[in-house]
Amino acid sequence: MKVAIIGASGYTGGELFRLLHVHPRAEIVCATSRQLAGKPVTSRHPHLTGFTDLTFTNPEISSIDVDVAFLAVPHTAAMAYAPSMVEQGIKVVDLSADYRLPKDVFEKVYGVPHTAYFPAPYGLCELHREQCKNASFVANPGCFPTGATLAAAPLAERAHTIIYDSKSGVSGMGDNASEGSHYPNVGDNFIAYKWTSHRHLAEMRQEIGFLKSGAKAYFTPHLLPVNRGILTTAHILLNEPMEQREVERLYHDYYKDEPFVRYQRPSLNSVRGSNFCDLMVEVSEERVVVVSAIDNLVKGASGQAIQNMNLMCGFSETEGLWSPAILP
Amino acid sequence: MKVAIIGASGYTGGELFRLLHVHPRAEIVCATSRQLAGKPVTSRHPHLTGFTDLTFTNPEISSIDVDVAFLAVPHTAAMAYAPSMVEQGIKVVDLSADYRLPKDVFEKVYGVPHTAYFPAPYGLCELHREQCKNASFVANPGCFPTGATLAAAPLAERAHTIIYDSKSGVSGMGDNASEGSHYPNVGDNFIAYKWTSHRHLAEMRQEIGFLKSGAKAYFTPHLLPVNRGILTTAHILLNEPMEQREVERLYHDYYKDEPFVRYQRPSLNSVRGSNFCDLMVEVSEERVVVVSAIDNLVKGASGQAIQNMNLMCGFSETEGLWSPAILP
Amino acid sequence: MKVAIIGASGYTGGELFRLLHVHPRAEIVCATSRQLAGKPVTSRHPHLTGFTDLTFTNPEISSIDVDVAFLAVPHTAAMAYAPSMVEQGIKVVDLSADYRLPKDVFEKVYGVPHTAYFPAPYGLCELHREQCKNASFVANPGCFPTGATLAAAPLAERAHTIIYDSKSGVSGMGDNASEGSHYPNVGDNFIAYKWTSHRHLAEMRQEIGFLKSGAKAYFTPHLLPVNRGILTTAHILLNEPMEQREVERLYHDYYKDEPFVRYQRPSLNSVRGSNFCDLMVEVSEERVVVVSAIDNLVKGASGQAIQNMNLMCGFSETEGLWSPAILP
Amino acid sequence: MKVAIIGASGYTGGELFRLLHVHPRAEIVCATSRQLAGKPVTSRHPHLTGFTDLTFTNPEISSIDVDVAFLAVPHTAAMAYAPSMVEQGIKVVDLSADYRLPKDVFEKVYGVPHTAYFPAPYGLCELHREQCKNASFVANPGCFPTGATLAAAPLAERAHTIIYDSKSGVSGMGDNASEGSHYPNVGDNFIAYKWTSHRHLAEMRQEIGFLKSGAKAYFTPHLLPVNRGILTTAHILLNEPMEQREVERLYHDYYKDEPFVRYQRPSLNSVRGSNFCDLMVEVSEERVVVVSAIDNLVKGASGQAIQNMNLMCGFSETEGLWSPAILP
Repeated sequence: MKVAIIGASGYTGGELFRLLHVHPRAEIVCATSRQLAGKPVTSRHPHLTGFTDLTFTNPEISSIDVDVAFLAVPHTAAMAYAPSMVEQGIKVVDLSADYRLPKDVFEKVYGVPHTAYFPAPYGLCELHREQCKNASFVANPGCFPTGATLAAAPLAERAHTIIYDSKSGVSGMGDNASEGSHYPNVGDNFIAYKWTSHRHLAEMRQEIGFLKSGAKAYFTPHLLPVNRGILTTAHILLNEPMEQREVERLYHDYYKDEPFVRYQRPSLNSVRGSNFCDLMVEVSEERVVVVSAIDNLVKGASGQAIQNMNLMCGFSETEGLWSPAILP
Repeated sequence: MKVAIIGASGYTGGELFRLLHVHPRAEIVCATSRQLAGKPVTSRHPHLTGFTDLTFTNPEISSIDVDVAFLAVPHTAAMAYAPSMVEQGIKVVDLSADYRLPKDVFEKVYGVPHTAYFPAPYGLCELHREQCKNASFVANPGCFPTGATLAAAPLAERAHTIIYDSKSGVSGMGDNASEGSHYPNVGDNFIAYKWTSHRHLAEMRQEIGFLKSGAKAYFTPHLLPVNRGILTTAHILLNEPMEQREVERLYHDYYKDEPFVRYQRPSLNSVRGSNFCDLMVEVSEERVVVVSAIDNLVKGASGQAIQNMNLMCGFSETEGLWSPAILP
Repeated sequence: MKVAIIGASGYTGGELFRLLHVHPRAEIVCATSRQLAGKPVTSRHPHLTGFTDLTFTNPEISSIDVDVAFLAVPHTAAMAYAPSMVEQGIKVVDLSADYRLPKDVFEKVYGVPHTAYFPAPYGLCELHREQCKNASFVANPGCFPTGATLAAAPLAERAHTIIYDSKSGVSGMGDNASEGSHYPNVGDNFIAYKWTSHRHLAEMRQEIGFLKSGAKAYFTPHLLPVNRGILTTAHILLNEPMEQREVERLYHDYYKDEPFVRYQRPSLNSVRGSNFCDLMVEVSEERVVVVSAIDNLVKGASGQAIQNMNLMCGFSETEGLWSPAILP
Repeated sequence: MKVAIIGASGYTGGELFRLLHVHPRAEIVCATSRQLAGKPVTSRHPHLTGFTDLTFTNPEISSIDVDVAFLAVPHTAAMAYAPSMVEQGIKVVDLSADYRLPKDVFEKVYGVPHTAYFPAPYGLCELHREQCKNASFVANPGCFPTGATLAAAPLAERAHTIIYDSKSGVSGMGDNASEGSHYPNVGDNFIAYKWTSHRHLAEMRQEIGFLKSGAKAYFTPHLLPVNRGILTTAHILLNEPMEQREVERLYHDYYKDEPFVRYQRPSLNSVRGSNFCDLMVEVSEERVVVVSAIDNLVKGASGQAIQNMNLMCGFSETEGLWSPAILP
């Protein structure tokens, strides 16, 4: 099966190469980058030397002859490709934010008009698997909403307040250098950012809303001096007290058939490079603390995108993704 | 003025040396360590070479002829020294947990009997300054309660729920190697620990209680891959909504005369090595996010201990502590 | 093919699990650990949850019914297993230092008698491939000698002095906590250690000697605040000046058929998690600087051990190892 | 005494503020920055909040009424200020590279014409103290040459080859974000850069030449995932073998009266934030390994600049600089 990566110069593009290399059914035949067109993919991704001979191309869509395309582009860029690709019969996984929210919510949160809206399944496979199966287009979730929603979902209907306090590695900022990613501003340091205004909150609220919950959700992200990974501490205030064992049972039941959710003590290094979400709960009085850990570039982006591709194409969901993390 | 450091081999001991070096009225004449007795202080603290010729001694209290003593020992060890030192007329700042809580609370939280209890001022200077002035004994607060309480105090009476989500550097674990401090378990990693059961919660609740608040307080600490610093994100749920400007005014008023609290965007590297607590607020709906940053070894331990010493001895509160942070 | 890991609780044991999971011909059926016998492998290696149901066993050799065994034990421990295993017809890759040096050199360098010596191929595949093919026992090289020797080998006969200045991640110290691996002693810090006395120098000198070179070799290791990887800067002083292009050609020719040596700008993150050695040269006057980068746990240990297993068993050398690094 | 900092927005500017705050004779009255003119110094240096009320000004030299000026500007910028300032009777410490080398060497190494050359003392105080005393202009040494030259100076006349293998923290790259300082390119990573072509080599060779040595010097810098500090491993090949004790005695004698050179095991965290150079030697056969550690922003820049100011103004050399490092 032929695969294109639209916007392949960034970290998620590199991860798609790394992960699809071991996928038995997918072959990357096209990797686009406006800026690096004409240069070898390995000039940008030196760790891929020996694994691809592709050269970045300009994203001339009409000529892309593939079965599946991953849109690894910034928001508002995906809407330029999506409709025509879908029309051509290409299965599309969109890693941007363009199709994760209803049109009006998107326009309000991102402050730009949506010029090519259509409704799409929200590709958090654990919650929306049936909608993603055989879909021709899936909106891949944001990195923070993935870890946060998986942490809170089993308790969504029993909570009145959920506070997601998330801590992310720097690769979440992308591969462009900025003052915010300048090493001396990050190394041996720690900050909160967008304390109450991060756009991903809209996705989080949508997901808990989807579950018919009236819970209020809040979100504050922080920047960790690490390369990869998001650890989310979900502080969940319950409507009625629950016992530790009861909550544990709830989580075990909720995720018992999920290949990529493990109930165990979460840490970034237990999931690094893998598609797992590790999580665990601890109850104290009327509060439940749920901590989840994911690799933001895998389960939070490229890995989940492949998980969606597998569902869309009728493959086994774990195909190409069944690898342990790299620790330490 | 002669000063002794009881338990001088650890990080807080080293910090007392570093900070008191520039204090115009204090001279360290005694540094004890059971384990390193007979060895030069610089054998343990190589950064002090050139600044002290002292040798660690055994903590034979009776022979300690000083004006002030810092107890930089583990909990339960301080109670062995405190009464006799106070009786000898030595001003004592206790950096351990032994006198921070009422006897019954201490015994419950720490699971050991208190064999030498007496009530003592809780040395969070910004909240208990008058009690610390001229006191002969002060219980220096824990590192987490310092940053957390300063973050929440101005809103304590208006909140119904306060969740302290704190992130600490590894020096908070002390200078003894352990599995938890093994570099590959911490570097490029991040974890929550004692999710609902950290002992410092008792101090936090005592402080908010002192303020006559009915707010419920919760606390989850995390371990950062950094050497120093604690950043606390206090998620505060209000009884009634407030405007951003109103909350800002509240904080400015509350801390307007405080030399060591700065209202500015907090980050660990803006306070590293200094006695400052930087904090800022952001209001969103019925939630206020307050983030505070301190150096756990300075404002969270040795610096605050000197601040208390200054109050106890009638010195200017900033004496020896008025230095900027080291950035980056 | 059935595989045993003797001493499976450490980092190299965990890596053997991670890497062999994707090897099409090997199945781990036995993982020993004296200390953790009876406990699940995943209790020690949480990233392996879902990938193995094995329980650590006591290393009772006689009952180990496998085709291949990896000895991932400290030096002097391997010699207790090696002879009887070989006698039983088990192919053995020894990751310890016990069989890397001639008996007399080993005893001098390690200061202990060798109680079960026999000569064995030194498993630096790129230099000793033919001896490793179909061998029943191979001594897997040390991590530092692997990166250093690959950096210098092509120039060995033309140099009079080689200085290896190596920088290693902390996982090279093993998984036992110690003062040396205590985070605050490593994080945001950097030191040299065993400046002139590291045992691996003996292997380095043996390898250059093997190449009939009279070059003098020196070695100083350093400890990096990173988890994985060794970058070696080889400062090579030539007998006679060479041009940049001439040296480049020499390296290209020397490694042109090597799957795991890539001539490209080395960095730890381009090889992390992979079996590659990336290297490059720069000539300046009579000095050549060659920098090489490996992952100390893969090409420097478990990956190279599997590479040797492949040679010993007649498999393709890259079997199970052909994966890109994880970057960032 | 009034002090101006020309180019005060960078790290060395921030350090001059931090260090001069405790200097009893110097007061900063002017801080220039073209880019930030009109903004408070603390908008750029938040750690200085409470310590300065200055606003950045445009560097209009004619109106600068000060006794001492620090030029903390890029190379080629200093030559625009130096002559007129000296003419006005201002004592100038130049932290740029403009006056460290003879005119012809400067022009060759930096590839630009020198438009305002005059000879100036090279402000490595330990080697050129007498020339710096009462001088009106001093060229402050580069960060790498400081640590490297102090490591090798006592052996300069006895060596035939000196290889400086240096490892620097990221603050050495300045405060401008770039691909090279992007956190995911540095964190948990390590690289060599400018393997044989770093401009600081010219200063190193000048210093060893100054000492009448015929030793050949080479230099390779590396980038550490740390904020501050340079550790240099000097591999020194001797003309004739020496004993460990002999070399130690040589170093002790050479530095016995130096306040800022300490003979002790070097590590970045023993010197962080301080003006010390810690160093130690280990002899092995005909090679001596000397390792030195400095804080690149203090002894490698702003601290040494103040040390030079003290010499130029006839103050005690340690004035304002006699503070221990911050550890950890």
